[in-house]
Amino acid sequence: MLNHLLTTNELKVEEIYQILTDARKFADGMKWKPESQMFTANLFFEPSTRTKSSFEVAERRLGLEVIPFEVLTSSVQKGETLYDTVKTLESIGVNAIVIRHDQDRYFDELVGKVNIPIINGGDGCGHHPTQSLLDLLTIYQEFGRFAGLKIAIIGDIRHSRVARSNADVLTRLGAEVIYSGPEDWFDNRSLSLSRFRPIDEAIRESDVVMLLRVQHERHQQKGNFTANEYHKQYGLTIEREKLMKPGSIIMHPAPVNRNVEIADSLVECGRSRIFKQMENGVFVRMAALKRSLESLKGGNNYEAAYSELKLHSI
Amino acid sequence: MLNHLLTTNELKVEEIYQILTDARKFADGMKWKPESQMFTANLFFEPSTRTKSSFEVAERRLGLEVIPFEVLTSSVQKGETLYDTVKTLESIGVNAIVIRHDQDRYFDELVGKVNIPIINGGDGCGHHPTQSLLDLLTIYQEFGRFAGLKIAIIGDIRHSRVARSNADVLTRLGAEVIYSGPEDWFDNRSLSLSRFRPIDEAIRESDVVMLLRVQHERHQQKGNFTANEYHKQYGLTIEREKLMKPGSIIMHPAPVNRNVEIADSLVECGRSRIFKQMENGVFVRMAALKRSLESLKGGNNYEAAYSELKLHSI
Amino acid sequence: MLNHLLTTNELKVEEIYQILTDARKFADGMKWKPESQMFTANLFFEPSTRTKSSFEVAERRLGLEVIPFEVLTSSVQKGETLYDTVKTLESIGVNAIVIRHDQDRYFDELVGKVNIPIINGGDGCGHHPTQSLLDLLTIYQEFGRFAGLKIAIIGDIRHSRVARSNADVLTRLGAEVIYSGPEDWFDNRSLSLSRFRPIDEAIRESDVVMLLRVQHERHQQKGNFTANEYHKQYGLTIEREKLMKPGSIIMHPAPVNRNVEIADSLVECGRSRIFKQMENGVFVRMAALKRSLESLKGGNNYEAAYSELKLHSI
Repeated sequence: MLNHLLTTNELKVEEIYQILTDARKFADGMKWKPESQMFTANLFFEPSTRTKSSFEVAERRLGLEVIPFEVLTSSVQKGETLYDTVKTLESIGVNAIVIRHDQDRYFDELVGKVNIPIINGGDGCGHHPTQSLLDLLTIYQEFGRFAGLKIAIIGDIRHSRVARSNADVLTRLGAEVIYSGPEDWFDNRSLSLSRFRPIDEAIRESDVVMLLRVQHERHQQKGNFTANEYHKQYGLTIEREKLMKPGSIIMHPAPVNRNVEIADSLVECGRSRIFKQMENGVFVRMAALKRSLESLKGGNNYEAAYSELKLHSI
Repeated sequence: MLNHLLTTNELKVEEIYQILTDARKFADGMKWKPESQMFTANLFFEPSTRTKSSFEVAERRLGLEVIPFEVLTSSVQKGETLYDTVKTLESIGVNAIVIRHDQDRYFDELVGKVNIPIINGGDGCGHHPTQSLLDLLTIYQEFGRFAGLKIAIIGDIRHSRVARSNADVLTRLGAEVIYSGPEDWFDNRSLSLSRFRPIDEAIRESDVVMLLRVQHERHQQKGNFTANEYHKQYGLTIEREKLMKPGSIIMHPAPVNRNVEIADSLVECGRSRIFKQMENGVFVRMAALKRSLESLKGGNNYEAAYSELKLHSI
Repeated sequence: MLNHLLTTNELKVEEIYQILTDARKFADGMKWKPESQMFTANLFFEPSTRTKSSFEVAERRLGLEVIPFEVLTSSVQKGETLYDTVKTLESIGVNAIVIRHDQDRYFDELVGKVNIPIINGGDGCGHHPTQSLLDLLTIYQEFGRFAGLKIAIIGDIRHSRVARSNADVLTRLGAEVIYSGPEDWFDNRSLSLSRFRPIDEAIRESDVVMLLRVQHERHQQKGNFTANEYHKQYGLTIEREKLMKPGSIIMHPAPVNRNVEIADSLVECGRSRIFKQMENGVFVRMAALKRSLESLKGGNNYEAAYSELKLHSI
């Protein structure tokens, strides 16, 4: 049974804890390498610095060979389907594949038909499980728990891959999630309006202020906001940071629009975990790759890892 | 004496058998690595998923360092000649180079002037020797011989790199080659019209049905065909597959235009060797690279390999 | 204290000699590898074959992992600043970074704010220190000294990254630098007009004829020259080469415009060190990377290396 990593929704709580445990071990210097030469490929159909590079580093830390794949110079230009591209890579010996694609749930046409694990590096406006997992790791490192935490997700919720999957998984893990930002950008079909808060209240109450990127490239109309207006109305300004509780932290999936979602001078302030999140990204991706590669030969024990995390909390 | 790999026409029968022998050994797990660190580069002036990735995997399986080279971001953009680009790579320590280029026989301006072996990854409408070799390996694995086989090459023969070089080499190896497809796309200047067959007859008679890709990107005018008409008149439809002899196989160099050259459901049917061909591509490329790299120090023994294949046929 | 490599002007003479000493040792087969896995990235915001590939080879010879970074497919497309891009790469574990950027002194916004060494692969019309260093190595290999040599820099001086930094560093090392080429392309604000010579005189007098590339892509107006006129008036023609002193050499940073800066048949003539320069590029880049990576743990002794070079001159 292949361990794909498609959405956090599909991960059981024990699986989440296992990935986090392995990620923490990698952060602490654990070595894990496959016994023989193994190959990965990163298929990014959308621009990305951080996710792609982060996977690259994770793959090489695991001693994997990374086959370069540039969409612009590939047969995708000749109209090849995603299935045929993946099947080709499988045929030439690629053992696991990371895909970012602008189509929601692109992986539905692959799962069950390909024989190598797929790690979702982001699909459409849908999911971005390694981003969720690195957020979880960052929160867990800070607080040692999820239960009882209040987490504010602020900004462009409708277009964010992160917002919905984080909201779901954080709730399952025992945290309370609230939202803020422009009401027009709030998707009340899938999220409860009762959890929506005015911006100052959200920032004052929460243990984690999780800002979302304003995705200029996805907004056809930006609403009536200039960057400056957005910052004043919904951004983490220098003034609003002073409302935050002692010990509460700032997170952002990056790339940051400085002085839009967050004041320039706060990006690297004492509360900010923004670059810590990037660091953690490598470790959760190492853990995700390990989990997928191990599934190629079977044999995976969630319970053991789960109890271990419980015993040795950070 | 450098062992370039430029065209199959220039390979002696013994050389072909040596490459196939090495490829079979690599498929069986043979390890071969150069004693010291060696460098390759893949210069692809045309889009490619499968050939480029296949070379990448082959190179890394041999423990070679692969220097990335993207035409779009290179000095080729500043008008540098191919010769100067190759000479540059030679100067910085690249030991062997793979080139795909849209100009027929681009390598004529290189051979004799550069001191590193060139492996042709496809030139213009001309040659694609590693594709021919992987086709040969796939046929040999299936039948254990070439003599007495009847092979139908069907489709866009005029624009196919594969058609002419395969026809030549298969004939030299003792097989009988016939053609089918749109008559307008048949190049009667270089191929005998007496070998042209109606599509159903070609499919009924042959041991190997080798379909060629309709190269939309090369056809200025597609003739009068819609995709659907092409499929009905010249494609391997579900009905035509039933005409095939027991034990005969389907091949295609890919990427496949599903429901044009071949019915979607036949791409992975029991007769299809399409993904097997891709697998074999890695092994023949490993063998071709080994042959070229070994020529850097001299010492290559075709006869030995040749007799070995004869003794231990599959 | 991080050892960036930003401009040759900022390098002390002892530092230059240390880099050249290490480069010569690498040319002679010295092995140096970091004790644990280390990561680099090459950020090229302008096209380049030779510099980028040369760094790639240098990095792999040192056993470094190279994280691919293509500007076209990165978050730079989403408007990310250079600082945030570099900080991201630092966060995910990149240990040293090579940057080419079209903005003069792009590195001023990075130095002091990032914790990994930056190696300048060329900035705007400003600096290109590894190119200067490879020129120095090539001259030193030839003459065993700089003092007393006369070096003519000929061509597009105003737009050349190489001209000004080479002029400065060669003068500091004891050589005499003169200039020639179109007077309109001579920048008399920063360079002394008294060192300007007519082309034939410059070629006749000098030990090193250093030709600069006519940078078509930077010239809005090319002046009144056709390629042919430029060659006749300011190029190294077959006739002018005959004026050169015995033992004097030809250099060019490449890519060469054949029959513009230099006659086609002279590119690989006995006096030409053009491809030797490329070879040397790998060795000085290995030395520069070693110097930067060693600075991550401190401990660098210029004086020792300096005396060593003095003792064992080539």
